[in-house]
Amino acid sequence: MSAAKKAAVVGGGVIGGGWAARFLLNGWDVAVFDPDPDAEHKVKEVLANARRALPLLYDKALPSEGRLGFHSELASAVGGAVWIQESVPERLDLKHKVYSDITGYAGPDALICSSTSGLKPSELAAQGARVIVAHPFNPVYLLPLVELVGEAGDCAHAAETLRAVGMYPLTVQKEIAAHIADRLLEAVWRESLWLVKDGIATTEEIDEAIRMGFGLRWAQMGLFETYRIAGGEAGMKHFMAQFGPALQWPWTKLMDVPELSDELIDLIVSQSDAQSGHLSIRELERLRDDNLVGIMRALKASGSGAGGTINAHEASLPDR
Amino acid sequence: MSAAKKAAVVGGGVIGGGWAARFLLNGWDVAVFDPDPDAEHKVKEVLANARRALPLLYDKALPSEGRLGFHSELASAVGGAVWIQESVPERLDLKHKVYSDITGYAGPDALICSSTSGLKPSELAAQGARVIVAHPFNPVYLLPLVELVGEAGDCAHAAETLRAVGMYPLTVQKEIAAHIADRLLEAVWRESLWLVKDGIATTEEIDEAIRMGFGLRWAQMGLFETYRIAGGEAGMKHFMAQFGPALQWPWTKLMDVPELSDELIDLIVSQSDAQSGHLSIRELERLRDDNLVGIMRALKASGSGAGGTINAHEASLPDR
Repeated sequence: MSAAKKAAVVGGGVIGGGWAARFLLNGWDVAVFDPDPDAEHKVKEVLANARRALPLLYDKALPSEGRLGFHSELASAVGGAVWIQESVPERLDLKHKVYSDITGYAGPDALICSSTSGLKPSELAAQGARVIVAHPFNPVYLLPLVELVGEAGDCAHAAETLRAVGMYPLTVQKEIAAHIADRLLEAVWRESLWLVKDGIATTEEIDEAIRMGFGLRWAQMGLFETYRIAGGEAGMKHFMAQFGPALQWPWTKLMDVPELSDELIDLIVSQSDAQSGHLSIRELERLRDDNLVGIMRALKASGSGAGGTINAHEASLPDR
Repeated sequence: MSAAKKAAVVGGGVIGGGWAARFLLNGWDVAVFDPDPDAEHKVKEVLANARRALPLLYDKALPSEGRLGFHSELASAVGGAVWIQESVPERLDLKHKVYSDITGYAGPDALICSSTSGLKPSELAAQGARVIVAHPFNPVYLLPLVELVGEAGDCAHAAETLRAVGMYPLTVQKEIAAHIADRLLEAVWRESLWLVKDGIATTEEIDEAIRMGFGLRWAQMGLFETYRIAGGEAGMKHFMAQFGPALQWPWTKLMDVPELSDELIDLIVSQSDAQSGHLSIRELERLRDDNLVGIMRALKASGSGAGGTINAHEASLPDR
């Protein structure tokens, strides 16, 4: 009876598990390959979270779940799959080996996609494999964004599939290390390390500075649209004139990179324990997912951002 | 009959207007001083937005509005005020002049607070005025965060008042240019300018990369708590070990500052027009406010972040 499409998930960590859940809950069959004996357990934990949270985004039922299989051989995982998602560790030599193996077993029309957060398609394809970047964001089963980088036709094809499983594909115009979002995240991460190291703020205080202020703005509009409003009737040009000169001020420490010494790591770990240690990772995941569901459902009313993506996906689901 | 406390708002732009609305809608009398003949109009526009949005956060009625006055003399605006909020342009000489004038008219127990987004209290107080930083975030009538920097007793006193009007005071441990949040924003702004300049992404694509992904995470948890979850059961130490080495990668352009040439400004302005030009600033403000209300109401369920601040404020309001 199954006319379901098949996705292969190569690498079954938090990201691979998130991909598996996203496809499975949208009616695809999913085959997971990971030599780690603990992979099945990890994927099933992610899947339990996803089964709880993802359906809450929609006012219609999602498709019937596809079939989930765990494979000890790459060949059987990849065979017959039209989407092959690689989420192995960020080592180029390892990824090259994986693509070479996949290419031997994959059908000619299968899309091979990498979850890499930093590597460029030209680096990934250096040994001839046909692969594009499809970089998702954790939790993959809830957050819409996937950055696509690579050959235009493959990206367009991938975008169509991603929209069909409720995601938001963003095709990056030129390849660049770390694509778009992770470049911004990296900038914030470095600056935050300086703030902790210099004793300006703890990890908890930095988190509050984000989620009590601009984090709320960025869940629904981005940087530029927010600043356009700040410019008022005079618009973006006025804002640039006001804020631009600050670039010449010594406001950032990012001209340099803080050394990740054992002392700094221990400081961050102990501050993070003090901030969040009263909750287990599982409890934190559920809190995060409940909040994400609430926020994204709230955005359905206006159709802004993730709300628009959910509305479009919902409209494509059958009434029953 | 009025036992209402009085706040003076010195400088009536978008930020001053937001402060006026925050105090007024929480039952304070507010006196605005701004020599700009257009200030009354601007403040009343902000107030109209605030009257529409702020009450929607709560399931109880806010206090009866205080009285709003516009003053052509600083003396009458400041006299009798227990909170004096300065929001004039970011020029140190101008601010020194304003503090000197305020000090001549203010009562001995009045708190003088600056909305400065970048200057340090030691710079502001260089000529002997007693002033602390109370840096809010636009829209001031909805976003909870206020960064406090300055003398510990004054900051503690200010924090009490800010909590009473539904805000979230974050006292910064050491003074530093741009406090905390604006240092992070500045880092993202610079990196974004590079992405636009280098043709990697448009303003709209950068905004989507934010609001479809990590913006949703940051509305409810910050940077560190999110990464703690990403580390999984192995925790923050594991995450640091995984992600830390990326700091040595050439992932950011922030080692340098892009020149804000006319070409770059025009590019950003035209991309911003293409992205958001179909909506007026007033329409964008209402869309933003509707989304913020929806998001913050969603967070009331878990009590995370802004949701917790609203719940605490609501509990302090009388039933009627």
